[in-house]
Amino acid sequence: MKVAILGATGYTGSELVRLLHQHPGVELAFISSRGDAGSPYYRVHPQFYQAVGLALQPPALELIPDAVELIFCALPHGRSVEVVPALLDAGKQVIDLSADFRLRDPGLYKDWYGWTHSAPELLERAVYGLPEINREALPGAALVANPGCFPTGALLALAPLAAAGVVDWASVVIDAKTGVSGAGRTARPAFHFPECAESVKAYRIGDHQHTPEIEQILGELSGETVTLNFTPHLVPMIRGILSTVYLRLQGGGTPEQVAGLFGEFYEGDPFVRLLPAEQLPETRYVRGSNCCDLGWRFDRRSGRLVIVSAIDNLVKGAAGQAVQNMNLLLGYSEESGLAQVPLF
Amino acid sequence: MKVAILGATGYTGSELVRLLHQHPGVELAFISSRGDAGSPYYRVHPQFYQAVGLALQPPALELIPDAVELIFCALPHGRSVEVVPALLDAGKQVIDLSADFRLRDPGLYKDWYGWTHSAPELLERAVYGLPEINREALPGAALVANPGCFPTGALLALAPLAAAGVVDWASVVIDAKTGVSGAGRTARPAFHFPECAESVKAYRIGDHQHTPEIEQILGELSGETVTLNFTPHLVPMIRGILSTVYLRLQGGGTPEQVAGLFGEFYEGDPFVRLLPAEQLPETRYVRGSNCCDLGWRFDRRSGRLVIVSAIDNLVKGAAGQAVQNMNLLLGYSEESGLAQVPLF
Amino acid sequence: MKVAILGATGYTGSELVRLLHQHPGVELAFISSRGDAGSPYYRVHPQFYQAVGLALQPPALELIPDAVELIFCALPHGRSVEVVPALLDAGKQVIDLSADFRLRDPGLYKDWYGWTHSAPELLERAVYGLPEINREALPGAALVANPGCFPTGALLALAPLAAAGVVDWASVVIDAKTGVSGAGRTARPAFHFPECAESVKAYRIGDHQHTPEIEQILGELSGETVTLNFTPHLVPMIRGILSTVYLRLQGGGTPEQVAGLFGEFYEGDPFVRLLPAEQLPETRYVRGSNCCDLGWRFDRRSGRLVIVSAIDNLVKGAAGQAVQNMNLLLGYSEESGLAQVPLF
Amino acid sequence: MKVAILGATGYTGSELVRLLHQHPGVELAFISSRGDAGSPYYRVHPQFYQAVGLALQPPALELIPDAVELIFCALPHGRSVEVVPALLDAGKQVIDLSADFRLRDPGLYKDWYGWTHSAPELLERAVYGLPEINREALPGAALVANPGCFPTGALLALAPLAAAGVVDWASVVIDAKTGVSGAGRTARPAFHFPECAESVKAYRIGDHQHTPEIEQILGELSGETVTLNFTPHLVPMIRGILSTVYLRLQGGGTPEQVAGLFGEFYEGDPFVRLLPAEQLPETRYVRGSNCCDLGWRFDRRSGRLVIVSAIDNLVKGAAGQAVQNMNLLLGYSEESGLAQVPLF
Repeated sequence: MKVAILGATGYTGSELVRLLHQHPGVELAFISSRGDAGSPYYRVHPQFYQAVGLALQPPALELIPDAVELIFCALPHGRSVEVVPALLDAGKQVIDLSADFRLRDPGLYKDWYGWTHSAPELLERAVYGLPEINREALPGAALVANPGCFPTGALLALAPLAAAGVVDWASVVIDAKTGVSGAGRTARPAFHFPECAESVKAYRIGDHQHTPEIEQILGELSGETVTLNFTPHLVPMIRGILSTVYLRLQGGGTPEQVAGLFGEFYEGDPFVRLLPAEQLPETRYVRGSNCCDLGWRFDRRSGRLVIVSAIDNLVKGAAGQAVQNMNLLLGYSEESGLAQVPLF
Repeated sequence: MKVAILGATGYTGSELVRLLHQHPGVELAFISSRGDAGSPYYRVHPQFYQAVGLALQPPALELIPDAVELIFCALPHGRSVEVVPALLDAGKQVIDLSADFRLRDPGLYKDWYGWTHSAPELLERAVYGLPEINREALPGAALVANPGCFPTGALLALAPLAAAGVVDWASVVIDAKTGVSGAGRTARPAFHFPECAESVKAYRIGDHQHTPEIEQILGELSGETVTLNFTPHLVPMIRGILSTVYLRLQGGGTPEQVAGLFGEFYEGDPFVRLLPAEQLPETRYVRGSNCCDLGWRFDRRSGRLVIVSAIDNLVKGAAGQAVQNMNLLLGYSEESGLAQVPLF
Repeated sequence: MKVAILGATGYTGSELVRLLHQHPGVELAFISSRGDAGSPYYRVHPQFYQAVGLALQPPALELIPDAVELIFCALPHGRSVEVVPALLDAGKQVIDLSADFRLRDPGLYKDWYGWTHSAPELLERAVYGLPEINREALPGAALVANPGCFPTGALLALAPLAAAGVVDWASVVIDAKTGVSGAGRTARPAFHFPECAESVKAYRIGDHQHTPEIEQILGELSGETVTLNFTPHLVPMIRGILSTVYLRLQGGGTPEQVAGLFGEFYEGDPFVRLLPAEQLPETRYVRGSNCCDLGWRFDRRSGRLVIVSAIDNLVKGAAGQAVQNMNLLLGYSEESGLAQVPLF
Repeated sequence: MKVAILGATGYTGSELVRLLHQHPGVELAFISSRGDAGSPYYRVHPQFYQAVGLALQPPALELIPDAVELIFCALPHGRSVEVVPALLDAGKQVIDLSADFRLRDPGLYKDWYGWTHSAPELLERAVYGLPEINREALPGAALVANPGCFPTGALLALAPLAAAGVVDWASVVIDAKTGVSGAGRTARPAFHFPECAESVKAYRIGDHQHTPEIEQILGELSGETVTLNFTPHLVPMIRGILSTVYLRLQGGGTPEQVAGLFGEFYEGDPFVRLLPAEQLPETRYVRGSNCCDLGWRFDRRSGRLVIVSAIDNLVKGAAGQAVQNMNLLLGYSEESGLAQVPLF
């Protein structure tokens, strides 16, 4: 089974290369890059020297070998939508890692991303690729919208409660802390080492573009209208997202109820780990792996439930989830190529 | 004017040494340490080599020179209370940097710290040393309870609104991110470099001992009963606390109202900086200084106000605030010895 | 094939668990710990939750299942020597990750480690487990002395030139930079996050215990007496060793000669990567992998050759090399279980 | 006394602003920037909010107020040389922080910087501003060439031995480790946080442009021709340079001789700290200060002396040294404005 990556030089792309390289069932047959076409891949990502022999191709669809059946689009937001329709017309399956097919309502692209969606008819066909809530819809799907990194962490923390309809949505606050690789591979002043080491900041309070994605899925799960505050923070580490979710349960709730809902919802899920009661998630314990660790505490004094989730933003938050989706799409074991223990 | 430090080898103690060393009005005449008595100070803190010539003394009160009029207690929680009564009896002024005199209700020590307070009569006499809310009470005070690092960041973010009585307390969530020096100077597994670099975690959710301190002061300011959720997080940096405070205002509130309340409350305060609208606080911009930077955003969609404060936990969160209190106690200019620009 | 680890809770031990867990040919059947016996392994190393179900056993040899044929000793220096003789007597193969069997001359233990070797007769039987110079001696060996982390980086930089007899030994300087995990998992003041983040230092100049190990092997390779200066530095990162080796070649040497010697010496070695001329090693490019990256520059002005090597100190510098040795010992493919691409 | 800074927005420029702001004898009257002219300074460097009220001016010399007598040029290499002649003609004193006037031989600019020097006649007039070796030449100088960051650390480690003529120059190796701020404030891929955190690398081996500067000054001090190897390394920290210098003394040398030469050479120097025998320099102990810490070890086995120096690259390696030079130029106390204790 041959696959391709469009946009293979960003962090998401290189993480896909890492994971697909060690996947037993697929062969990476084509990788492209606008800026580095013609270069051996290891020139751009020296960690792959002598492991990955491919050279980067220009992003011209006609260069993709016919034998390629599935394509990962790891292009910037707004560029996937220009390419995906043609890929689908050519009969390829597509897993898109951008935001371009995640939202159902085309109007939200105008509001949150600032551009008009040019292929709104695809928004309904796209399957939102969070296997833990959408596993049945994935086998054979033509187009998978791979979730954003922040939505993955936030949704896995909230999905069981949303699905059970027990959340007091007006009470929900999501405070997320991300490593710097989440900002992508392009050097910019805010991510220059001396500007972000030894510091923490909040950014895009109340207007981060992952907000409607989170609200949409929680709305679908709960059948309610969900409007919430999501606030991201930048933390001086390379990888990882820790999401701290504050909420009140309808009727107050009990620890037993919460444990029961989480246990049931994630039963059999290979990558969601409900931590033992005495532990809380830390991003280091999921580094390099496709795991999402979950823990929570009832704060009886304030009547709040505090849920914490930890993911590696480049794996479960991007490339690992894409491979998990591919496995489900193609009928491989869900864990295929993703069994690595986290790297301390 | 001669001053002394009991417990001079911890991070708070060494930061006091740094600031007092460059204070034009006082002379540091005595420093003590239980574990390092007899050693020149620079052996323990080599940054002071050739700058601070003092040697560490045993923590025996009779060794403190008579000429010392003011004493900083930078002892661990629970040890100050054993020492302070005798210092006051000897006629010394005391600025205590532990939690031992911050809470008014002696019962809270049992609940949150696990020990019974042995000098409850002093709790009423102690002045809570957050100058921005308590400046008038400081001149001539005998005993100052220097605020905790987390309470300083949280209270400065909330005080103007609490004092105006406009906070919907049930809505308040405080999510704080601290550097590792907040955990003190004792090596412990959780703060071993390989265990906390490249990672973030939440800890002590719902039961951190700074919670009642925050609630007490906000209760006093607002005249209301305040119960809230405070959740600290550990971030891989040495210094700094960023506090993100989520709340709803009674009646909804407006940006103008908030700006007005903050501007009025902090008018003339030399260390609180209300950032221009286009900026948000980052801990790097206060590093090494006594500043508290404040910024906020109205999230109209969720009806929330999100306030962010940044302090250096060792300066405004501990030693700098203690020097600020000393200045007010002794009649120096409030900024004396504290005028350094933050060190990028 | 069943294997065991004695001392499984340190960083070397946990890295062995990670690598053996994903090794297709062996089963990890026993893990021990003095301090944490009785605890499930994931309690000590939460990254293994739901992946490794083993519990830690007391370090009593009689508890090791009979079916275990090969044992990794990841005990502290000086403790392996107390255990290994009995293991060998019981017919087990042993890969020892301590320094206890690396030096041929028992007297060096007294000089550099401060204790008298209690099993000097084993020093001659032990095979020094650096496969790139000792591959032939490994199959079937009873006792492998796994090299130190610093020696691995330094020796791989120098071995081809030593073996060719072209080094002017009086000119050799080895300046190594290590991440903090090299200091082990025990919390100590020097490795407390606030004490080693944002700083660099040299330590143990001229008396680091890895010096005689480096000299011994270079002496064996070259047939000359080798005395050199090795200076380690501590760098604020978790993993990685970069070794910068300065030397003069006898007769001056040429770039072509050096390239030729390196190419020949490492031909077919799966883990040594001779970088293309335009690149130099960086520790991030080998993180999590068993690779050793090598690069060099001729400094014509000073007549020096400068060689740089990069390894992950916990993998090629410890656990990965031990698994590589196991593969050779047992007849598996040398790369078995070690094929992961470095984790950016 | 009014002073100005040309190029005030880089790291060197902002550190000058920090130090001059707290200098008791001078007033910062003019700051310029090519890219940010018109902006209040705090917009570019928010740490100065409410402390520094100046706005950035275009870099037009006619805008500099007449009352300004001394000008700091913190422009990029190659741009100072275009500006300094006119400043001198206008009767200003200039402290230039670029490399443009550090080398005596104009030909070296072609060789190492790649451009032809347009004002070679000024190279003889410029005083090399390393006060510890050139203090007498500074008072009243018209043009000071402020040393490079690496040369400062390397020269202070070697100057006493060079001046005594006891160095075997063929043996000298300088291995330097720098924080990332040394690369300047411009965001570039190599200094993007995820690309340089958790990693170490060597760069520009044998061809770094600070090499001839080091060689020139050591040659002047010793009266010998000096050709040596200087190799810089990038370390994941913001500030600091640790230089490890390896050498042999002529005739072997003794510890007493070395201690004597260092003690004599630096007697009375306020910023050079010869550490007690049991300590070695660490960059954290000089952070934010103008100190250079020095320590050394005799490695008897290899016959080498290993000297270690630590500086803050932005202070003693740039802006602090410039202020120290200004103090000497203008007759202030050498420590004026520079007395801060290092910030742990």
